[in-house]
Amino acid sequence: MNNKVYIFDSTLRDGSQAQGISFSVKDKLKITKKLDELGVSYIEAGNPGSNPKDAEFFEKVKDLELKNSKLCAFGSTRKANIKVEEDNNLQALLDSGVDVFCIFGKTWDFHVTEIIKTTLEENLAMIKESIQYLKAFNKEVIFDAEHFFDGFKNNSDYALKVLSTAKEAGADWIVLCDTNGGVLPSSIKPTVDFLVSIGFKNLGIHCHNDSGTAVANSLIAVEAGVRQVQGTFTGLGERCGNANLSTIIPNLMLKMNFEVIPLENLDKLVSDYRYICEVSNIIPNDREAYVGSCAFAHKGGMHVDAVQKNPISFEHVSPLKVGNERTVLMSEVAGRSTLMSMINKVDPGVTKDSEATGRIMKRLKELEHMGYQFEGAEGSFELLVIKELGLFKPSFELIEYRVMIDEPSRTDRSSTVTMKIKVNGVLEVTAADGNGPVNALDKALRKALSVFYPSISSMYLTDYKVRVIGGDKASSAKVRVLIESTDGNTTWTTVGVSYDIVEASWKALVDSVEYRLLEDEKVNINK
Amino acid sequence: MNNKVYIFDSTLRDGSQAQGISFSVKDKLKITKKLDELGVSYIEAGNPGSNPKDAEFFEKVKDLELKNSKLCAFGSTRKANIKVEEDNNLQALLDSGVDVFCIFGKTWDFHVTEIIKTTLEENLAMIKESIQYLKAFNKEVIFDAEHFFDGFKNNSDYALKVLSTAKEAGADWIVLCDTNGGVLPSSIKPTVDFLVSIGFKNLGIHCHNDSGTAVANSLIAVEAGVRQVQGTFTGLGERCGNANLSTIIPNLMLKMNFEVIPLENLDKLVSDYRYICEVSNIIPNDREAYVGSCAFAHKGGMHVDAVQKNPISFEHVSPLKVGNERTVLMSEVAGRSTLMSMINKVDPGVTKDSEATGRIMKRLKELEHMGYQFEGAEGSFELLVIKELGLFKPSFELIEYRVMIDEPSRTDRSSTVTMKIKVNGVLEVTAADGNGPVNALDKALRKALSVFYPSISSMYLTDYKVRVIGGDKASSAKVRVLIESTDGNTTWTTVGVSYDIVEASWKALVDSVEYRLLEDEKVNINK
Repeated sequence: MNNKVYIFDSTLRDGSQAQGISFSVKDKLKITKKLDELGVSYIEAGNPGSNPKDAEFFEKVKDLELKNSKLCAFGSTRKANIKVEEDNNLQALLDSGVDVFCIFGKTWDFHVTEIIKTTLEENLAMIKESIQYLKAFNKEVIFDAEHFFDGFKNNSDYALKVLSTAKEAGADWIVLCDTNGGVLPSSIKPTVDFLVSIGFKNLGIHCHNDSGTAVANSLIAVEAGVRQVQGTFTGLGERCGNANLSTIIPNLMLKMNFEVIPLENLDKLVSDYRYICEVSNIIPNDREAYVGSCAFAHKGGMHVDAVQKNPISFEHVSPLKVGNERTVLMSEVAGRSTLMSMINKVDPGVTKDSEATGRIMKRLKELEHMGYQFEGAEGSFELLVIKELGLFKPSFELIEYRVMIDEPSRTDRSSTVTMKIKVNGVLEVTAADGNGPVNALDKALRKALSVFYPSISSMYLTDYKVRVIGGDKASSAKVRVLIESTDGNTTWTTVGVSYDIVEASWKALVDSVEYRLLEDEKVNINK
Repeated sequence: MNNKVYIFDSTLRDGSQAQGISFSVKDKLKITKKLDELGVSYIEAGNPGSNPKDAEFFEKVKDLELKNSKLCAFGSTRKANIKVEEDNNLQALLDSGVDVFCIFGKTWDFHVTEIIKTTLEENLAMIKESIQYLKAFNKEVIFDAEHFFDGFKNNSDYALKVLSTAKEAGADWIVLCDTNGGVLPSSIKPTVDFLVSIGFKNLGIHCHNDSGTAVANSLIAVEAGVRQVQGTFTGLGERCGNANLSTIIPNLMLKMNFEVIPLENLDKLVSDYRYICEVSNIIPNDREAYVGSCAFAHKGGMHVDAVQKNPISFEHVSPLKVGNERTVLMSEVAGRSTLMSMINKVDPGVTKDSEATGRIMKRLKELEHMGYQFEGAEGSFELLVIKELGLFKPSFELIEYRVMIDEPSRTDRSSTVTMKIKVNGVLEVTAADGNGPVNALDKALRKALSVFYPSISSMYLTDYKVRVIGGDKASSAKVRVLIESTDGNTTWTTVGVSYDIVEASWKALVDSVEYRLLEDEKVNINK
């Protein structure tokens, strides 16, 4: 059996059936282009018979000139008791202008008699005639055997008849669908083994993740002889989603030695994952296998220590292979070696046994006890190290600020801040308003500082997170604020903790500008 | 072989090694209580040898009086070349006061020689002596064979020696760990089959999700004879996370007919999942198998139609079995029955077809679009229903408030609020200070109201949570504030959303006192 597995991406069809997803034609074109560059075999781009937006897409996509992928339109077999020539759905497929069609047909007898309410014989005729009709136009036809596994369990004779009918009618691929996502891995292998043993070739698999096993089911099917894997690149799809191709592709290539996409594209997986999430308007899953930002993030002290000795100790593959990177998180469970790698970024001369290291450790523990957490707040942590090494000179001195919040407000920015700061003995008095005290403080601080440090005006906040630490004291509970900032080139994160959300935010804001000025000018470190 | 599978939840240990997770002692106690009520067999609650906060937890947890679960402390075998009696880690386990210990030992020869840098013989001695030492105190000892699958692949003789050593030393369980998460499902069955064939009993499995197959690997191991499954309830854990128990439990019970947790608790899965996410301060995964809010959400037109004819057409199990519900997206019939039960709490006379029901639906959708979420904020939802039914009379009118925050502050309460409210035409002017604007507003509002409604002085806030909704606008991003209040007898939760955290908090505060006065006096409903 050959070694090539064909990837069939349905982000634009099954993915669009996920809650909260709505692709514009432009979004679809972007994703098509990206998947083609990555090198998947098939891109299922829509259902022209049921969605008018899809017809527009198929018109516009002709300009893209795809290099690696075949475009595929999705539809179903003809309706019961009409002629193929008169079926709107089949006509819409032909009108789409692509050369590959994926049509689904009912494989579970219960669905034939109870849902579409026709006879078992008519359903077979629908499958046979639809495939023959499309093949007569010299098209590639992929037959999705909908609910195959449920059908095979409940009436295996009929399910097999469906597959044979599709095969004899000339389908190029027969895809075994676990449409409801209920099948567990142990059912997959014996079923595929059996189909292969009775002569089925060019089989595909289409899994949903309702049992949390869509990836595993797909891999097991490939081991048993399936050569097309349907899924969606980010795992999006109806209900719990489809089999996640960003997991399946590296598993097949790095662990099972199949040819899937061009090897030189494998390290684009992470950036493509983020890109497709972005276009789909979903938040990337940090904990996603291979492509998540935490996929190679080490936190447990022993893990961090071992990974620095030899990465294979706690990494199943090298992050570089999929375009990801190793990160080491700061935390109370992290050990001294994590700390050292951070300290040595500031001063390579400090060792494990330096007195400074002990001092930093002590300060870190004090701050963590107060509710600080430096994991994901490396900006503040670097400042802490610089301070404990005696290398810090503040960029400004706060004389005072006052925040006033008025309800009702005369404008849509109910918070007003007055602020006085001093830089090198020069006083700057300023004011700003904002929709909320933090927004107003942020604006006032950057306004005042940019008088002295023009570069500060190029920075802005990109993320703001609040975590209440121990909610039992309710509105006077401690809060931890995380702020992410950027200057367009780099990104840094800082943290502040206080019983007062405004004060916690202020601390994180101050760290953010101090970190920026440090990186920018390197004038504060007297080395 | 018996039919009971023992669930070992490591949310509080391996889960705490996930990026962004930091549990307070109070959080840990809450999660312990919830897991015990659900009925998992083991709760691994911390690593007393490496984390001082965990020692505090083990002291406080004694008051909980668990009904179903055994508490377990995590540690490792003794260090190389010291005596067990002198090993701090083993001592910390004994000091924790629990009766079950889970200790890990190196099973992969590479880790022994290259990471902990000792001899293969000494490692076996470390395992043997540590287990014997703990068993001598009559403790249950679970041995985590770290990196078992990698070790078995690279040096199966040594990996087997490790298991035999642990078994002969008296370990009650031997757990096969895929520590790096790199193992694919097809490696699991032959390996476990082999171990069972040479006489190993009481085996466990511990999988990580780096290949996206942790759930499948765990299920396959159980089929092959493993009887303990380690994981975390929400799937949180080092890197990509641990095997997700909220998926594994229903798979084992509903599809594989194992005894796992008490059957009558299975329909608490969804609410427990949300609760543990909330305490962990992670956003629940809408697309999670079984427990996600989309797990039974139907969008494709054909799916919606078929599910209404017969749910099994597109649902692998009934959502009710796990405490979830079917939702139909983009359709006015979505969730109407859920909604009706809430509406009928306020007015039993309203029906599905009442004009009021449509109005409430519409308002609910508007508010959800604005970022509101009423799940877990039933107080605000009940007020919404009362308002839309025209039954609401506000208890007070806000004339104005002003918050002033001074930095530096002359006291430890830097926020001062002045407030004017009117009740039945009578003006009350008051002021309060607090450590933070929300604390000050809360105090001022209750101070002013208690002049008119003495009962208000018995209520206080018990929890305050902030979630930033879509962080891209940073310090002016929208926030959702959830407030939990109590009067000592009952507890209620309210919600507010705004670009301004102070305003969002104010909205939730107002709902909280309105709800209290409504419940207390029932004077506001003109029935």
